This record gives sequence, C-alpha cells and structure tokens, in this order.
Amino acid sequence: MDKKEFALRQHEQWKGKIEIISRARVTNREELAVAYTPGVAEPCLEIAKDTDLSYKYTRRSNLVAVITDGTAVLGLGDIGPEAGMPVMEGKCALFKEFADIDAFPLCIRSKEVDDIVNTVKLISGSFGGINLEDISAPRCIEIEKRLKQECDIPIFHDDQHGTAVVVLAAVLNALKLVKKDITKIKAVINGAGAAGSAITKLLVSRGLKNVIVCDINGALTRGGKLMNSEQEHLAELTNPDNTGGSLREVIKDADLFIGVSAPNIVDGEMIKSMADKPIIFAMANPVPEIGPDEAKAAGAYIVGTGRSDYPNQINNVLAFPGIFRGALDVRASDINDEMKIAAAEAIASVITEEELDREYIIPDVFDKRMVKRVSEAVAKAARETGTARL
Amino acid sequence: MDKKEFALRQHEQWKGKIEIISRARVTNREELAVAYTPGVAEPCLEIAKDTDLSYKYTRRSNLVAVITDGTAVLGLGDIGPEAGMPVMEGKCALFKEFADIDAFPLCIRSKEVDDIVNTVKLISGSFGGINLEDISAPRCIEIEKRLKQECDIPIFHDDQHGTAVVVLAAVLNALKLVKKDITKIKAVINGAGAAGSAITKLLVSRGLKNVIVCDINGALTRGGKLMNSEQEHLAELTNPDNTGGSLREVIKDADLFIGVSAPNIVDGEMIKSMADKPIIFAMANPVPEIGPDEAKAAGAYIVGTGRSDYPNQINNVLAFPGIFRGALDVRASDINDEMKIAAAEAIASVITEEELDREYIIPDVFDKRMVKRVSEAVAKAARETGTARL
Repeated sequence: MDKKEFALRQHEQWKGKIEIISRARVTNREELAVAYTPGVAEPCLEIAKDTDLSYKYTRRSNLVAVITDGTAVLGLGDIGPEAGMPVMEGKCALFKEFADIDAFPLCIRSKEVDDIVNTVKLISGSFGGINLEDISAPRCIEIEKRLKQECDIPIFHDDQHGTAVVVLAAVLNALKLVKKDITKIKAVINGAGAAGSAITKLLVSRGLKNVIVCDINGALTRGGKLMNSEQEHLAELTNPDNTGGSLREVIKDADLFIGVSAPNIVDGEMIKSMADKPIIFAMANPVPEIGPDEAKAAGAYIVGTGRSDYPNQINNVLAFPGIFRGALDVRASDINDEMKIAAAEAIASVITEEELDREYIIPDVFDKRMVKRVSEAVAKAARETGTARL
Repeated sequence: MDKKEFALRQHEQWKGKIEIISRARVTNREELAVAYTPGVAEPCLEIAKDTDLSYKYTRRSNLVAVITDGTAVLGLGDIGPEAGMPVMEGKCALFKEFADIDAFPLCIRSKEVDDIVNTVKLISGSFGGINLEDISAPRCIEIEKRLKQECDIPIFHDDQHGTAVVVLAAVLNALKLVKKDITKIKAVINGAGAAGSAITKLLVSRGLKNVIVCDINGALTRGGKLMNSEQEHLAELTNPDNTGGSLREVIKDADLFIGVSAPNIVDGEMIKSMADKPIIFAMANPVPEIGPDEAKAAGAYIVGTGRSDYPNQINNVLAFPGIFRGALDVRASDINDEMKIAAAEAIASVITEEELDREYIIPDVFDKRMVKRVSEAVAKAARETGTARL
C-alpha cells in the first residue's frame, strides 16, 4: 500500500481526528442535578452578571476555533468547505497534542467576506480564540482585519502569521551564523500574497530595512502598476530606493532570499549574484523555488524549505501551538506584532549557540522545549503590550 | 455548602464540561505526515469529489452542534449567549454519556432570526445534525422551520420536540393504565408557546382528535382574537367544536391535562370537574401548575411533572440522545413526525405491562435499555419514511 492509500485508509479508520468528551460525570441523578438542571443555573446566573466569567465556568478559556471556507486548502486550492475539514481536524489534533488546547474545526459554506466575518463574529463568544486557516488571498487579509476590529478575542490567520513567525525565527538564527545584522542586510521576498505580505511586515517590524518584495511582475515599487491595495501598502513599507526590475535583477547582492511563490523560479546564476554567504528560504510546496542541492551547489550558505525531507523545515507547527497557548494563558485580547516577534525569538532560542549549524537553524517540531518557551514569551509580550487580561 | 454553592464550585473545578481530544496520534514525523501534510491531502481530494464522503473521512457522522442565542435558558429567561453556555455544555456532556455522540456547544451573539438562520446554515457542513436549545418563542419556531428548509441535516429544537416526544410517551403509557383510546379522549393543553405547540401537533399526529389548547386568554378558537400566526395554526388543528372559554371552563370532562404554562394555575376543583381517572402532566418548572399531592387529593389518577423529586418526571434526556443516535446512524436528512412518534413509542415500551404503574409510567433516565431502543426505532422510521441516507 503506498503512502497516499495508507493515509486514506487511516482517515477512514479514525472516523474523524477529533472527538468531544465529557469532563463532567453524569451517571446518576445527583450528578445530573449538578452538571445539568437545576445546578447548572448557578454558573449561568454568574455569567449573566459578568460575561468574563464564561472563562471561569465554561471551556472557553482553553477553546480555539479552526475555521476555513475551503478556498486555499494546502496546495490544493479551492476544494470546498467540507473538503477542507480533514486539514482543520488535523490542525485541531496538533493543537491538542502540542499545547493541550481544545480546538474545534468549522467550515463555512460561503466565500463572501461579509458572510465569513459575520459568522465568525456571531459565534466568537463561544471561544477563547480564532485560528483562520486556508482562506484564499486577498480575502483572508480583509477577513482577518475586520474580525480583529470586531471581536474581543485573538484572531490569527495561521497561513500568514504562523509562517511569518517561523520564517523570522529561521532568519534570526541564520543571521547569527553568518554574523550579519538584520537592520543592515538586503532581503528579497518573492511572493506578494498573504504569506509574503505577513512575512514582510513581521521582518520589517523586527528591524529589517532594506527589503524588496516581488510578485510575478517583478519588484513592488511606489507608483508601480498592477498592484492590489495590500501590495501598494507593502510598497510603502519596503524598497527604500524604490528599485524596479525583475526578481533576477533585484536579487543581486541580496543577503537573504525568501520565496513563497512558485516552483523552480530561482536558478544557480541568481544565487551566485547574491552577497557573501547567501541565505535561501525556498518555501513553495511541494516543489521549492530552487532545490536545496542546486542552491548549495551555487553557493547558498544556508537553505530552508517547507519540506520535512530536507534540513531546516519552515513548519507552522513550531509556532501556532505555543502562540495560542500563551495568548489563552493570559486571556489576550489580540495577538499583536510584539507577541509574534517574541514567539519567533523564543523558537530561535531553543537552539543554543553551540548547537546552531547550517543544517540546524530551526528546532525539530517535536522538540519538547518548544511550546513552553514560546507560550511564556508570548504571554510576557502580551502583558507588556497591554493585551493580557489576566 | 449548599447545593447551589456546590454546583458553582464544581463548575469552577471542571473548567468546562466538554473537552476536545485527538483521535489521531501525532507523536513523530511519520504520524504527522499521515494526520497532517502531506497525507491529509488524500481525504481532502476524495471529499472534494463527493461531499458526502465528509461523513466517511471526518467526524461529521457523529457530530451534533448544540446551539443557543441565550434568550430562553432554563427558567431564567434572556440571560445572554455566553450565560447560556453552561447549559449547552451540560447538554453536550449528556449527548456523550448517554449516546456516545460528539456534541459541541455554540452560542450566537444575535437575537435576529436572519442572523441565527444564516449562521447555522453556513456552518452546517461541519456537522451531522443541529440541536437548537433555549431560544425564545416564537422566534424558535421560525428559526427551526427555515433551517429545516435550508439545511440538508437534521434540525431539532429540543425544547419543542424533545418535550413533545416524552409527553407522548407518558400519555401512551398513562392511557394503557386507564384503558382509554387516544383517538377518543378529550385533552386540554395549557400553554400555547413553542413546547405547547409541539406537544399538540405530535399528539394530533399520533391520533388525538379532541384537544383544546389554551393560552393566558383561554381556549384557542378559529376566529379568536389575540393570537399569533402559530396559535392561529394550532386553532385550525384542534378544538373540533371550536369551544371558547377559560381553562376552568374547558377542562371540564377532560381525560388529560397537559400544562406547559405557569405555577399554581390549576386547583382541586378543576381536577374534580374532569372525567374519570384524570391524567395530569403539570410541567411548569420548578413550580408545577398544580402540586402532585394536591392533584391526587382532588382525584387525579396519574400525575407527572418536570421535577426529579416526584414520580413520573417528564425529562427530555429520555428522548434527545436516542433520537439523534438513530438519526446519525442512518444519516437522516431530517427528524420527522414519524421518527418522533417512533421515539415516543420506544420510550413507552421500555416499561413492561407488568411494571407499568401509576407512579411509573416514564422510564428512569438512567435506564440502560433506553438509547438503544429509541435509536433503533428512530432509524427504522427514518428508513420507512425515506429520510435515511444509509
């Protein structure tokens, strides 16, 4: 049986990767009278007096919704809401296994921004946080932005920010090895969709100054053409010299290349045109912008991809469990840039100076130290920035 | 510590009465590659080809949402969505403990019918069934009606139909004891809200012909005043002689009284005016329409209430676990009258002719025979009426 067939059979046997159990015993009349009527009236009345007590008397304090509309599932594209659910359930399983968070998968049968925003907003009182997942760009950016304004719990689109956090962690460790300063390097980010945008903003927020973002038409420039509003915003934040040109042109002399774009669009010559000890994160999946072997042969000093079969895998699993754990622990009202940067620095710090190596700049996803360290850093940043409510 | 204080403390210790666990192991890279990327793509692609396969590859086949807007929680009234959640969680705990159903609680932050219908409809692809709960009348009736039209999974407002099923079960067993025929008795139902309406319709559907429904203004009559559209509909279905008058007037010569109304509105004289061996179900909670002792002293032959501290407790817990178990088992598209009647007859049948007694017409909620018998009867009725999809 090949791996695909095995995965399918295994899913059939699981009959769902999540299950809901009861934490309350209700095996006799006395227990029923506590967990249900008439006893249950007491926590109801307390919450009616103060909605915040829902965190004390219901599961809300540990509960995250994982929500999709099925429009950008893995690399499969718009496969429909129900078809996205195996991924959402998998994500929920990871939330539980990695961070002991109760996560519940939901799919929404609409692609309309208004529908998705209203639905999530109206059910948000049931949860302590919302993880948006596999929603296509540019809608995902608007949906997240509006939900952040309208909800009083953390809203986190993992495809944007989870990726950005792990990339920042990888960049921080890679820069330690090549002894370069993030404020002084030149970076090129190829891919101006949701992930590319989030990565760019987080790196800029952490001190990156000289960065050029490219899309399929080349470098984004102020006054450039064929850009959506998000790309115009990115052009404002980046490209200090407002340099135009193709990826091949602007990658010259760059210290860092980050690809969240398409297979095989970087070649050895482009790597050779980069600065000394170039760092390459080629994250197109499953086929990266340039293969690790080809990149190294052309002089890449450090290479990371999204794949588990090469060293330095950029994997969101490193980030989202600890980020939500930390946010829930202090009942944060938001997951802000400071919290994301703290998460990235915590992930990077799991690897000691002695351990750090060109082939080991990102911790293993099963590293036991991870979630605790990330959650503590996120909680601390939440307190320092005033989003913590505990 | 009194019972109320104990219930509150217990809820604080539980930190939620439900919990979400992972059915998939993800403790190493190999397992991660099956439960999550890349393996998870296979069930996604299968479901994309045929949405029905979501029942095979995700938890949907065993998953019910328990949804409220917090407007009619227990006897507490409109206490708000979050404040309703301890009840919803309790209901989910009962679903699991009684019928091994995964039930997830959701509250909706709106009282608008359109909002509630749209929200439930848009997330309905995540579930195998929807249990509406503690939504105030008359909105609950319209919400359920519209959702039944717009969704392809069972929609069941338990406060209406769960109650109706258990009342029908109690009526069937009580009539066995007094040796009367449901098609020939006179019944009076006091309370023309959501529960009274559902009880009336189900009893009529099971053969009751001579029934008068009263609200606070007395008997509902065709052409009567001060009625909403649901009550006008009830007047069409009932009251063959179109008799007007107060409850005190119309209860005369009735064989059966069912109250879903207000405390202490029935007195001994009214009981004495009823037919031989009158049957009284006084379900106002916590204080019934007439106390069991007073009713019996006045000649009531069989008395049931909503209370656990008297015999013959009319308790929805007898119905909803088995009804949903049966509906999920055959992937029913609806829970129709035939399925509800089958459930009621199954509940009634759990008590044998020998066991049947004036103080034991309703099985104990912890009777182990219940869920299996109800679910099998419901599944059979679903198959016979064409709503079963398995």
